[in-house]
Amino acid sequence: MSGVYVVAAGMTPFRQHPDTAVHELARQAVWAAITSSGIDPEAIELAYAGHAYQGQCFGQKALLKIGITGMPIVNCENACASGASAVWGVYNAIKAGQADIGLALGAEKLSGRGGGFTPMVADDLESVMGRVMPAVFAMMARKHMERYGTTLEQMASVAVKNRRGGVLNPYSAWTENITIEEVLAAPMIAEPLTRLSCCPVSDGAAAVILASERVVRRLTGKPVAIRAAVMASGRRNDVGMADDNSEMTIRAARQAYEIAGIGPDEIDVCELHDPFTIAELVHCEDLGFCAPGEAGPLALGGHFDRDGAVAVSPSGGLLARGHPLGATGVAQIAELFWQLRGEAGDRQVPD
Amino acid sequence: MSGVYVVAAGMTPFRQHPDTAVHELARQAVWAAITSSGIDPEAIELAYAGHAYQGQCFGQKALLKIGITGMPIVNCENACASGASAVWGVYNAIKAGQADIGLALGAEKLSGRGGGFTPMVADDLESVMGRVMPAVFAMMARKHMERYGTTLEQMASVAVKNRRGGVLNPYSAWTENITIEEVLAAPMIAEPLTRLSCCPVSDGAAAVILASERVVRRLTGKPVAIRAAVMASGRRNDVGMADDNSEMTIRAARQAYEIAGIGPDEIDVCELHDPFTIAELVHCEDLGFCAPGEAGPLALGGHFDRDGAVAVSPSGGLLARGHPLGATGVAQIAELFWQLRGEAGDRQVPD
Repeated sequence: MSGVYVVAAGMTPFRQHPDTAVHELARQAVWAAITSSGIDPEAIELAYAGHAYQGQCFGQKALLKIGITGMPIVNCENACASGASAVWGVYNAIKAGQADIGLALGAEKLSGRGGGFTPMVADDLESVMGRVMPAVFAMMARKHMERYGTTLEQMASVAVKNRRGGVLNPYSAWTENITIEEVLAAPMIAEPLTRLSCCPVSDGAAAVILASERVVRRLTGKPVAIRAAVMASGRRNDVGMADDNSEMTIRAARQAYEIAGIGPDEIDVCELHDPFTIAELVHCEDLGFCAPGEAGPLALGGHFDRDGAVAVSPSGGLLARGHPLGATGVAQIAELFWQLRGEAGDRQVPD
Repeated sequence: MSGVYVVAAGMTPFRQHPDTAVHELARQAVWAAITSSGIDPEAIELAYAGHAYQGQCFGQKALLKIGITGMPIVNCENACASGASAVWGVYNAIKAGQADIGLALGAEKLSGRGGGFTPMVADDLESVMGRVMPAVFAMMARKHMERYGTTLEQMASVAVKNRRGGVLNPYSAWTENITIEEVLAAPMIAEPLTRLSCCPVSDGAAAVILASERVVRRLTGKPVAIRAAVMASGRRNDVGMADDNSEMTIRAARQAYEIAGIGPDEIDVCELHDPFTIAELVHCEDLGFCAPGEAGPLALGGHFDRDGAVAVSPSGGLLARGHPLGATGVAQIAELFWQLRGEAGDRQVPD
């Protein structure tokens, strides 16, 4: 079966944009992808829009205002994976022969929704009882500390590294570096996670354009091939509680390596899901970059730095760039597109 | 590229279920599809869940409670096309080689949301100004009447026919037949559409299981092949106002006929989108069953009856079965699955 390629990417800065409508953020991201690539917007044959909170038919409304109409448009919501699900939808549709050129758009406006974290759903008993994201990841951190001896300093070093990436990233919310001491001294959110151990609330949009084998050479001389696109979900309702690591992530990663025909030791650069510092450590282990329990010391030692063995989240990740839910997964693909083309500016991972 | 088949279907009755949670409706539909087919739930490798109003990660939550976990699950929202988009997502994923067996679930609980129609979005200026669905279709009706001489009786005959189908359908909300006179005398909703010209508010869920060429023969001796799966969206923001017919539907239908290698005259049975009587007439024209303007007289003459030239919505359609948004598109595929296997009971279209 023929390949699928990323041929263009665009993004807004990820930060609070209280005075900008989410449709306008979407327009900026899509238009950046189009103008940077010279791809004719009329050539886009289908779109997926990933978002969690932007209302009914968001993709249709946003793309109509951008002037891109007529093609299949599907909105998808998968919480923090909404944007990644949109990319996956476009990838599948192209591979299925529905289109040669497809757009994945992710957008979210969280500012002005009140509270410091993802808006809670009033009828979700678990949320109401306190099982909100910071609490879930705090439990994950406590378990990792107890089981493997992971330290507060090791976890804090993830925030320091990612902020360093964010400072170099014009799309990031933050512009100043931080120290381990500052992370540890920040206000406590959910023990042992301080405010600087958590991703900031932000708004933003990202877009990538995918193309089939058949047309890719007409569109760009520098396509980025997608060698595997794998999704998984959890097997039980206890993610982060019963397991030390994330069984679903381990399963998805193994499948992706198998399809791509490579191993974790061949990965040079990775964008992973780091809404909290502990998540990056756990996911580095899940992805096979090291054995369970080893990520903490390795992180503190610079193993995952931009010039380390594996550059993890050189963009600054969610911790520095922010995490507008629907936009995040698309932004990760956009960042990897730039990194693999050598177009990541000051945050470029060395060859 | 290899084919994709429908191998199982399940559905709840579509009616108001004020005391049944939407997750329970989903469970009933999925479980009906599984038990009627004997397919091992563990064999389901991915799922799309179509819904519009059931909250974040609805598919994950519903399938977790059903005991089907671990696989990719994507929630999709496309208003009235949410369910159809879910089927399309599963179709593409199977064709893309992501899975051999996939589940499309559609579910919606609208009762208890207040109002007689789809809940309005407070910040949607058009809705607030009165451009709600009954008004849009009332304008469509007025235009069709003016341009083609379509009569109130012709439109009412659609409701009478579909109610007749619904009375024979155990999944339908309604159990009594109606007359043209009753449709015309019912309370006016949006002139010229009376209450019996509009689909009832209802709750429900539907599920279909799709399979690849590779495994289909292992699963059933009576698969139903999907010869084409096409989506389109409108080119402008004036659907039902500037055009007499639906340009996007005409475009999608032509593309589907071309891919399948058949013409509209070869269609024996059709489930189409009939939230209001006028919609069925317009869509019969859009789908090429007759020329623009001809659907009214043909409908009144029985052309689209169960024993007519083309059996349109023998299930009773949205007008009789009801229209729980996310469930509708999946239910239409389920109905066609039963019709093409000769399993549609009293409402079976003759061979």
